[in-house]
Amino acid sequence: MSDSYIEQLIKVISKLPSLGTRSARRIVLHLLKKKESIIPQLMIALDNVHKNIKICDVCGNYDTISPCGICSSKTRENNTLCIVQDISDLWALERGGLYKGLYHILGGVLSAIEGVTPDDLNIDKLLKRIDNEDITEVILALPATVDGQITMHYIYTLLKEKDIKISTLAQGIPVGGELNYMDDGTIKLALDMRKLL
Amino acid sequence: MSDSYIEQLIKVISKLPSLGTRSARRIVLHLLKKKESIIPQLMIALDNVHKNIKICDVCGNYDTISPCGICSSKTRENNTLCIVQDISDLWALERGGLYKGLYHILGGVLSAIEGVTPDDLNIDKLLKRIDNEDITEVILALPATVDGQITMHYIYTLLKEKDIKISTLAQGIPVGGELNYMDDGTIKLALDMRKLL
Repeated sequence: MSDSYIEQLIKVISKLPSLGTRSARRIVLHLLKKKESIIPQLMIALDNVHKNIKICDVCGNYDTISPCGICSSKTRENNTLCIVQDISDLWALERGGLYKGLYHILGGVLSAIEGVTPDDLNIDKLLKRIDNEDITEVILALPATVDGQITMHYIYTLLKEKDIKISTLAQGIPVGGELNYMDDGTIKLALDMRKLL
Repeated sequence: MSDSYIEQLIKVISKLPSLGTRSARRIVLHLLKKKESIIPQLMIALDNVHKNIKICDVCGNYDTISPCGICSSKTRENNTLCIVQDISDLWALERGGLYKGLYHILGGVLSAIEGVTPDDLNIDKLLKRIDNEDITEVILALPATVDGQITMHYIYTLLKEKDIKISTLAQGIPVGGELNYMDDGTIKLALDMRKLL
């Protein structure tokens, strides 16, 4: 690593999530070996994202336009609103292609340990949307963690007086899941919620 | 993933070594969240590497100059030449800072399966260096794999008539290694090569 340009690139890349110094070194070596093809390609892709992507003023999604493609779509069901923690959850739901309603991105969940309070979340806009838009059902698709459940309960208390249906995602054994590998909490929940055939 | 710029960036990043689509998505989301700080930083680092880094004509190392900093150094021992498979091996040795000689990067090892022949490796330049430079010892620091050992033997046959010392790295149990976790081959080798105390 005789050269500081190489070291700088390794340093920047090693700070990205799911990477460390060792994988950053492998990536930089790969970039160096295919310098003329991959580096310009990567720079153009980065530049396009940097110049064109903005946050949707309505739901918090990323898109080239605001309101985003989902919020401004004429074909989506605009009376159903799915509340998610993060944009990666919206991406996961969109990959499935099964949900046809709108989204609202909270930008996190309440957390006593990490000091996340309701003011840190995108809740004010959520309440305004429910008052002003034609929403009849809210799906709370927050993570099945303690913080996720607390956040879900908090939002439920804010919304329960309003004239809308509120639902959450079903919990239990995932498709393909083997009991052997499930934690006790999931097994208890799946037993408690068992369905008559 | 409503936007194709985001998808493009995920696609380019997911093709880098040690990354897949899932980690590429995490990285892109991280880049989007810190768009104004990290993306320009990453683009500058990429551009610097792209514009300034070249391959050393002598040894095959990457540097801003050719011959590289190591080849043109006045303080390194220019009669010892360490032959390595790849630049990552040179980086590993330089991090230790224990080796003070010169390097020669083969750019791979012979492989029947992957169809790597002597013509694909940086061997011609190696022979010329040994004839023209003041080299008295060659260290074959190639990987301890079958292909690495075959390549080592091949280079040994090319060099053994010349008036130079040829050595290889010692093999055995690594520092901190527990017998319990060593493969049979390493244990056999460590036994065969046992040292009298």
